[in-house]
Amino acid sequence: MKTAASEKYRPYPAIRLTDRTWPDRAITRPPAWCSVDLRDGNQALIDPMDTPRKLRLWNTLVGMGFKQIEVGFPAASQTDYDFIRFLIDGGHIPDDVTIQILTQSREDLIRKSFEALDGAKRAIVHLYNSTSEVQRRVVFGFDRQGCIDLALAGTRLVRELSAQRAGGEVTFQYSPESFTGTEPDFAVAIVEAVAEAWGAAKGREMIVNLPATVEMSTPNLYADTVEWFCRTVKNRANLIISVHPHNDRGTGVAAAELAVMAGADRVEGTLFGNGERTGNVDVCTLALNLFTQGIDPGLDLSDIDSIRAAAEECTGLPVHPRHPYAGELVYTAFSGSHQDAINKGFKAREKANSTVWEVPYLPIDPADVGRTYEAVIRINSQSGKGGVAYVLERDYGLELPKAMQSEFSKVVQSVADREGRELSPAEIHAAFQATYLEAGAIQVVDYSTVPVSSKGTRALTAQLVVGGAERIIQGVGAGPVDAFVHALQKDLGLFVTVRDYHEHAIGEGSESQAACYVAIDGKAGVVHGAAIDASVTMAALKAVVGAINRRER
Amino acid sequence: MKTAASEKYRPYPAIRLTDRTWPDRAITRPPAWCSVDLRDGNQALIDPMDTPRKLRLWNTLVGMGFKQIEVGFPAASQTDYDFIRFLIDGGHIPDDVTIQILTQSREDLIRKSFEALDGAKRAIVHLYNSTSEVQRRVVFGFDRQGCIDLALAGTRLVRELSAQRAGGEVTFQYSPESFTGTEPDFAVAIVEAVAEAWGAAKGREMIVNLPATVEMSTPNLYADTVEWFCRTVKNRANLIISVHPHNDRGTGVAAAELAVMAGADRVEGTLFGNGERTGNVDVCTLALNLFTQGIDPGLDLSDIDSIRAAAEECTGLPVHPRHPYAGELVYTAFSGSHQDAINKGFKAREKANSTVWEVPYLPIDPADVGRTYEAVIRINSQSGKGGVAYVLERDYGLELPKAMQSEFSKVVQSVADREGRELSPAEIHAAFQATYLEAGAIQVVDYSTVPVSSKGTRALTAQLVVGGAERIIQGVGAGPVDAFVHALQKDLGLFVTVRDYHEHAIGEGSESQAACYVAIDGKAGVVHGAAIDASVTMAALKAVVGAINRRER
Repeated sequence: MKTAASEKYRPYPAIRLTDRTWPDRAITRPPAWCSVDLRDGNQALIDPMDTPRKLRLWNTLVGMGFKQIEVGFPAASQTDYDFIRFLIDGGHIPDDVTIQILTQSREDLIRKSFEALDGAKRAIVHLYNSTSEVQRRVVFGFDRQGCIDLALAGTRLVRELSAQRAGGEVTFQYSPESFTGTEPDFAVAIVEAVAEAWGAAKGREMIVNLPATVEMSTPNLYADTVEWFCRTVKNRANLIISVHPHNDRGTGVAAAELAVMAGADRVEGTLFGNGERTGNVDVCTLALNLFTQGIDPGLDLSDIDSIRAAAEECTGLPVHPRHPYAGELVYTAFSGSHQDAINKGFKAREKANSTVWEVPYLPIDPADVGRTYEAVIRINSQSGKGGVAYVLERDYGLELPKAMQSEFSKVVQSVADREGRELSPAEIHAAFQATYLEAGAIQVVDYSTVPVSSKGTRALTAQLVVGGAERIIQGVGAGPVDAFVHALQKDLGLFVTVRDYHEHAIGEGSESQAACYVAIDGKAGVVHGAAIDASVTMAALKAVVGAINRRER
Repeated sequence: MKTAASEKYRPYPAIRLTDRTWPDRAITRPPAWCSVDLRDGNQALIDPMDTPRKLRLWNTLVGMGFKQIEVGFPAASQTDYDFIRFLIDGGHIPDDVTIQILTQSREDLIRKSFEALDGAKRAIVHLYNSTSEVQRRVVFGFDRQGCIDLALAGTRLVRELSAQRAGGEVTFQYSPESFTGTEPDFAVAIVEAVAEAWGAAKGREMIVNLPATVEMSTPNLYADTVEWFCRTVKNRANLIISVHPHNDRGTGVAAAELAVMAGADRVEGTLFGNGERTGNVDVCTLALNLFTQGIDPGLDLSDIDSIRAAAEECTGLPVHPRHPYAGELVYTAFSGSHQDAINKGFKAREKANSTVWEVPYLPIDPADVGRTYEAVIRINSQSGKGGVAYVLERDYGLELPKAMQSEFSKVVQSVADREGRELSPAEIHAAFQATYLEAGAIQVVDYSTVPVSSKGTRALTAQLVVGGAERIIQGVGAGPVDAFVHALQKDLGLFVTVRDYHEHAIGEGSESQAACYVAIDGKAGVVHGAAIDASVTMAALKAVVGAINRRER
């Protein structure tokens, strides 16, 4: 870097909490979720949402099961105000959903906010002011008391307007904004003053939101501060502690999780992490992280693709292909060893008939979020035999024996290496056909077989084309393949030792085709042949001939 | 969710480490970095890289200062093999950079890997096998000892081939792959066996890589396991402990950071987190997280846009607009209060002439990564006066007084609300012109002014057009503006009280234009007028007239 870091940046001032308890805790139930998609998320868009887009996102959020949704900053934006009126006047708010609005601590803004809420059955009024040391000094030019006075003036007005409100009192939420830049003792002091001014009490709990407006430290330090706050603040029981992490250091999800372990009751975030700069914490990831630990998250993400589509269309921002749980590529394995292990994991689970999910490399069953494991395996030059075998079986019903998988995967790898890109199932199948099923120097035209003794020995007559000329060969053996091998040796001088033989039906019913795979001795190791035919015997003879053709080539 | 989480998923089995020390530690120096972009990253691409793309990425990584780069899995892919030969034969490897190659524990693969390294001055041979309980049971079908035997066979062969190597011994790295799914005591056992077989010793340290092949828990549990591992394993001093986090739960960055606090010496990851599924840990974010804490990360990210461009073009994958430090939108503030605070933060820093970075809402100086704060502020319906004022000053040299900022930001907000999208600086400027600079009912054509007494009183004659008709007005006052106000009252019957007055040059030099802003009493509060003219007096008269026109409209 051109700049010396130590001259310009200081380490985050960690609170010294040596008796922390959060690292020994695990999350056993979900926090209360509050979506801020329509406010913090919307505010950060190049093109903020209009009412139709907002309504679509609102319906998505309600459909997922959010019970608290921050819908706007009505005193700061006419669009936000109009949308809130649209929701209330249009009866779009279900009885069990509470809307939340944000306001700064200024009289005109607070009054306008209450106006916006007129007629809402329930509401959370979320008041904030910036409490960080830098902002007090640089932006507002007041001391701690000036900052507290600003918060108290707003709190008192909210209390007054709430008491007069026709629809009943609102729930009050206060954020010491830029909490991560605020001295912890001052955060406690201002929250205690606000809680007293509001009259927080049992049955009149107040939400205290501790935003990581800017993420400024490793997530454990945020958790330390949240735990210290919860342990220090007076009358903790009257407060609902909420966190609102941003993602400036890429650790917003971790910060939320550790903060919940540290005592937070509630998390504010957005779908897939939209929001100012690097975004808010991603509620979908948080919820599914809980799900994979056996905890019902209280949000329905069983059709993640449609949630993703709604979010993408409403925000105009993409969800990254590698986004946890939702990205296009996250249920896809390219590596051969991964593909092989996943394949075996699926089979073992099926065989054990177990409900417990334990498939290597897949932390969640894709089906639980409406995705499919059919799409798990893609084939490129990095893929091994497992992936190739999986695709041939899944898409073409071909169950290659293990040794043949190894042989054929090398063929696929060389094609992929040559092409320098992913191969489609059709291309893999075409490579299979070109390698094993194309006509060679010898072709089987027809055959007949009759029993020749009571011991089960059979005679076989086969009509071949050898180098363009028709040939009839005859042989006797324990079965048709054995008889055919003897005929090849006797009449054509071809020595064939069959080392392995597999045959299976493709699809169901008596009209289904048969696929046959044989391995014969070659000059160095075995050589494989394969064939598909309506007749199981014909398939076998063709497979033997296919192997010979490949050996002699 | 349609599936009951508790029936299908189990909580991660946490190691019980009650005397952990990592939460009390802070990172004070960077770990050793190893890029796995060309291997783990490349393996996960829909279209793996060809040699030109690989070379471009290689050069980017070397340019950033990576000293260890995993370049491929040469025994598994011909493309990887060829690229490694290309690097070695072409002399592309600087003396202080060590290439690393990955291999499974199989004789043919290990031999081919050594072949690929022929002629390399230095190399790390990275051997792995899957050690997780599920993989031992479901994929490999062996017990713990079988798993250890596989690792030992590979280790012994690497040792043998290393001793025979013409270019000198290699550094050995072992990964108990799927470490996060491996019982910690077994991970220790297999690593101890491998270290003994390798002959790890002082001066012959071995890299032990502990991959979160799948991220399976909150990051604190990964850190607990890493700390426990470091404390438990025999001869810790002979081992370089490396971590290789993936990002399945969106906490890969946190996992790496907490693991380094827990004792890891080295981190494997990729640029912007490319890699299988949800990707590897993002080394750029890790490095810049250190940087913002005053720690030189040992990687040069001072031109992050060109690194991003290289990564995007080589991988074919985008960096998300909200990606920490690198995304298109991460140095952009839309919110009015954010814009205002940033603006003040910049000014305070300039005034204090301080090296320390403390600008609200910006955790890093964009200039440190080659980005600009000129692009910080964009204007939409969510923006407040600070942002609008900043854009007008930055792009048009107009320094609106505070009260006028408030007035004009409402104008901008209504335009943005109507348009439902972001406004460009040109559009904001156009709105300013339409609001303040367009001709109204009264226009000033010219003026002359002469002194009338020794006390500095002046007489002013102004030529106006009023409602289309030319008018000459005259007045006397303390200065030209005062005289003009008197003339307006005397000759046109217009009562004007000037409440505020600001004037400044636009640009430098005597030919520069003057901008003037006035506030006069209106029916309800003040009304603003503005004007730009080569003459400071003319600008003032026009501004007064502009305010009158707006008041009377």
